[in-house]
Order: sequence, then C-alpha cells, then structure tokens
Amino acid sequence: MTAASLADRVVAGDSRSVARAISLVEDETPAGAQLIRDLYARTGRALLIGVTGPPGAGKSTLVDRLTAELRRRGQTVGIIAVDPTSPFTGGALLGDRVRMGAHHADPGVFIRSMATRGHLGGLARATSDVALMLDAAGKDVVIVETVGVGQDEVDIVRTADVTVVVLVPGAGDEVQALKAGIMEIADIFVVNKADREGADHLAHSVSALLSLQTFAPGAWRPPIQKTEATTGTGVVELLDAVDRFRAQSANLRASRQRERQTMRLRDLLAREFFRHVERTLPPEELHAIADGMAARTIDPYSAAADIMRRVMASAPPKPTLAS
Amino acid sequence: MTAASLADRVVAGDSRSVARAISLVEDETPAGAQLIRDLYARTGRALLIGVTGPPGAGKSTLVDRLTAELRRRGQTVGIIAVDPTSPFTGGALLGDRVRMGAHHADPGVFIRSMATRGHLGGLARATSDVALMLDAAGKDVVIVETVGVGQDEVDIVRTADVTVVVLVPGAGDEVQALKAGIMEIADIFVVNKADREGADHLAHSVSALLSLQTFAPGAWRPPIQKTEATTGTGVVELLDAVDRFRAQSANLRASRQRERQTMRLRDLLAREFFRHVERTLPPEELHAIADGMAARTIDPYSAAADIMRRVMASAPPKPTLAS
Repeated sequence: MTAASLADRVVAGDSRSVARAISLVEDETPAGAQLIRDLYARTGRALLIGVTGPPGAGKSTLVDRLTAELRRRGQTVGIIAVDPTSPFTGGALLGDRVRMGAHHADPGVFIRSMATRGHLGGLARATSDVALMLDAAGKDVVIVETVGVGQDEVDIVRTADVTVVVLVPGAGDEVQALKAGIMEIADIFVVNKADREGADHLAHSVSALLSLQTFAPGAWRPPIQKTEATTGTGVVELLDAVDRFRAQSANLRASRQRERQTMRLRDLLAREFFRHVERTLPPEELHAIADGMAARTIDPYSAAADIMRRVMASAPPKPTLAS
Repeated sequence: MTAASLADRVVAGDSRSVARAISLVEDETPAGAQLIRDLYARTGRALLIGVTGPPGAGKSTLVDRLTAELRRRGQTVGIIAVDPTSPFTGGALLGDRVRMGAHHADPGVFIRSMATRGHLGGLARATSDVALMLDAAGKDVVIVETVGVGQDEVDIVRTADVTVVVLVPGAGDEVQALKAGIMEIADIFVVNKADREGADHLAHSVSALLSLQTFAPGAWRPPIQKTEATTGTGVVELLDAVDRFRAQSANLRASRQRERQTMRLRDLLAREFFRHVERTLPPEELHAIADGMAARTIDPYSAAADIMRRVMASAPPKPTLAS
C-alpha cells in the first residue's frame, strides 16, 4: 500500500486505515511524516477538546458521555486517551478495547489510547499528529484526554481549542488540582461526581479562586459545571458550555492554533537538529564527551558550545529547493 | 558580588550563597551558566537519591525521616522538592518554609522547592543543575523528590544514583503506581503507611510483578521495604538498603551518570540551537510560518526542513577557541 493510497483511505474515513496511519505517525516513521505532508491541507476543521484532571476524577466516563451526546447531535468523534503505561504491563492498562465499550459498533467514533512513554520526539507533538489524522479522517470533534499532573500532559490539553478541567470532591483533591498546575488552563471547570459530599464546597472553592483573577470586560469567564458522569447528569449543559465558548472565542482559537503550530515546529526543528548532530558526531564521540563530563574533565556548557561550533561549521544539508 | 566569589562561597557551604546560586541556575541566567562552569570540577561527590511515587504516598514525610537518619549518620543533606505549582497560588504550595520544619536550625540540611512549570529549558536539566550546586556546596547526599506521574518527573529520578519508589496501600493506588509507569525505574520499593490495611497485599503485588522480570545472576533485585514515615519505622532499614545498593552498583552508577550527562548535553544543545534559530529568523517570521501552517498553506515538515536549511546555511557562531 503506498502512502498516497493510505492517505486517500484516511480521508475516506476507513477505520483500519486511520488506525494504521496513526501508528505510522505515532512511531515517527518516514511514512508517517509523508502522511502528514499529504494530509495536512485536509486538516484544520475538527474541534479539539482537551479534557484533563487528577487521577480518579472520572474523566474516561465523562468523555464517553460527552461522546454519546455529540453523536446524538450528529457529530463524529475521535478520542485520544493519553495513558501513562508501564513496560511491566506491556501496554495501556485502559486499552482501546475496554474503552470502546459503549461505542464499539459505531463507525462515527474512533478511540485510540496513546502511551506517555517512548515519545522521544515529544508526547505533545505525537498527540497533536495523531489528532491531525483523526481531523483528516473527517471527525468533527477530537477529544484528547490526559491525566493532568505532568507538564507534558498539561501542555497537550493547554493548546486544545477548548480545555475542560475535571475536578472531583474528596479529601485532598482540591489541593491536588492546585498542585497539578491545571487550574489556570481551564476554559470550563467540571465538578464531577456532583452527588458526592463536598461537591458544593469544591465548586465554591474553584469559584473563589476564579474571583482572584481579573477578567477583561467581555472576556470568557470559565463556568463551573457539575456533572455525574455515571448517570449523564450535566453532560448536555457541559456540551452547551463548549458551544458557547467556541462561539465566543474565535480569536482565542486562532492564537492557540498558532501556539500548537509553533510547538510542533519547535519539536520538528529539534528533531532535525539532533539528526544533524548525529551525522556530525558519531555516537561513540558523544559518549566520550559525556564520559568526560562525568569525569569532570569538561563542563557541560563548554562541551555544548564546542559541539555547536562543530555542528554549525559542518556542511549544511543539501537544499532540495532553490532557496 | 562577582560570580567567582559566589562560587567560592558556595564551595564554603554558605547557605545564603547556595540559595542565590540555585536561583541563578534555575532561572537559566548567564551567571548561572558561569557558576556551573566554575564549580563543575568540584562536583560529582554527592550521592543522588531520587524519591518518587503517586500523590499522597507520604514522600515528604519519608524524605524528612531519611534526612534525620542521614544526619544521625553524620551526612549532610540537600533536598530538592519538585512541586507542581499553579500560577494562581504564586508559588509552591509546600513551600521551603513549611518543609524546613524539622531541620530548620540545622546547617547540615538545605531544602529547596522547585516549580515544575516555567522551565522551558527542561525540568530535568534544571533539577540536575540545582543538584550540582548542592553537590558543589559539599552536601554528601542530595535527595530529589518528585510526584511520579508525569514523564518529566519520572525522567528526573530515573537518572539518580538510587531511585526509591514509594507506594501506599489503598483503593486504586496499586493501579495508579502501574499507570504512572514508575514501577520499572525502582531500585528500591517502599510500601509506606505499612500499618494500613492492604499493605501486605500491596507488597505481595509488587513482589509478584517483580517475579515477572528476569534478573541476571548477581544483579540487583529491588527489595520491598515497609515503612511508617510518621513514626520512622523502617527508615533505618531503607537507608541500609540504599547503602547496599550503592556498594553493589558502581557500574550502574557510572552508566546513570553518563545518561544524566547526555541528557544535560542534549538539553543545552537544544537551547543553543534555538538561540541560533532566533538569531537567524526574527520572531515575526516564525509567527508568519506558524500562521501559514494554521492556514494550511504549508505543512509542518516542509516548514521545518525549510527553516533548517536557512539556519544551517547561516554563518556559524564565532569560535571563541581555535578548533
């Protein structure tokens, strides 16, 4: 199968081809890069919703409910579940098959789990590239779900078109949310498991924190939506809030798309740069420099400056176009 | 105060100077880079202990207990607490002052909290550089404590000389630890809050997971140490396990130090490279390219290749030494 025909099948929305395209992109293969080149002009239409929050907040269930409501409204949905995984288990604990549950027979829903480890080129870039494939495949909405604790995971959702931060009442959870550094990235707050004791208190705490912020006149002020994901209570209202945000924030969406593009560009540049470093300095020489640093015969800043001089002085890569 | 005299004061172990040096290094100032150059040959002596685990595992209390025991054994200690923070709160929730508690009056202990956000140059590098300052200041042991959920946080402790993974019995915590992808980085497991129901079960689960791994003959097999950090139970045994690991793993320590150096070198190279990109392409031009990507007039791979050509073809930075 050539990359071109695979690209055509992705655009046609064929699930198996989308799955294969995602793998090629996720594994950073040359064929994956070519797919992005080929399909890039066909992307940019999907709404990217980021959903994050502390572990145990009920994000997966909420995303399933959101998906059901989106489907009811006639939208097709792609879901990227970013799962921290362990090599011990050999893959995502919450695998695609488990997640597929409710939407198994629905061709309008595509679910993909991504491991957080092993993305040397950057988890945020990998997620973003996978989202592009779902976008190219014609999904109206792409939901990216992460556990909002690490910086990488926060970065992923921060540049979504809409960012939903899911909190949950219970001992320590409020502090957890604050510690996770995810409060400031929310466009919409969700207090999930709203039937639990402490839900009102949590909503008030978030409201109090928001009142410390200054909002420009007419600027979006993140609403706080209570939900019970297990029953679906509040999910319609949550999606309405997403729609309101989308309608109000065209400028914001453009600036976030720019941020996403810049992030992707930086990532690709770094990768290109390190390939060039590897061409200039064989691995054994890099190891020798690292050993010299370990032995304290050279300091890291001098080593880096020295390598930079050599890399930049080496022949530039051949232009493929007149420049 | 000149950088040289600050370096001398750091080596003399003056706490205020160490604090200032850490700030200069953490903020990626030129003075910080100079400090690392000046002090690098004086480093490499401290034992770096990484402590990680899920939120709420009692890591901070355990680190305090470990510190007390290390002090009893005549060792000086530096602690770097990597705290996810929120701009809402304006800093680390668990600030240095709170943490100082038990060791406030002890000049043999230096505690520093580091925020996870805002380290564009890389949290792992920033942490590593702060550890260097504590190393140069003559601390015998440097403990780096992180919440082991994000990839960054895992990377930080993964390259420590000894990595301690702290688990805690309780609903979902085991799965949490697995999901966090931190199982495979442990040199020593701690089951903290060992008086709680489920502690034995958790220890057995970890043991069962370990039995799935193949260990070479004579290779270190991570022990599982039960502790009660609040009372100090098991902390002596934990530190004994650290000593045993240290005695058995000289080769491993060398390879991790190399990994740490390589990581630092890559990070510095990436930073140098992006400075060069910024010198070659003014920000408005980079923005225009990102906008072109957003408008789908150019794909990211073609944009990156184009920028690389221009950057590499531009005049290399002036050598400061004959090369």
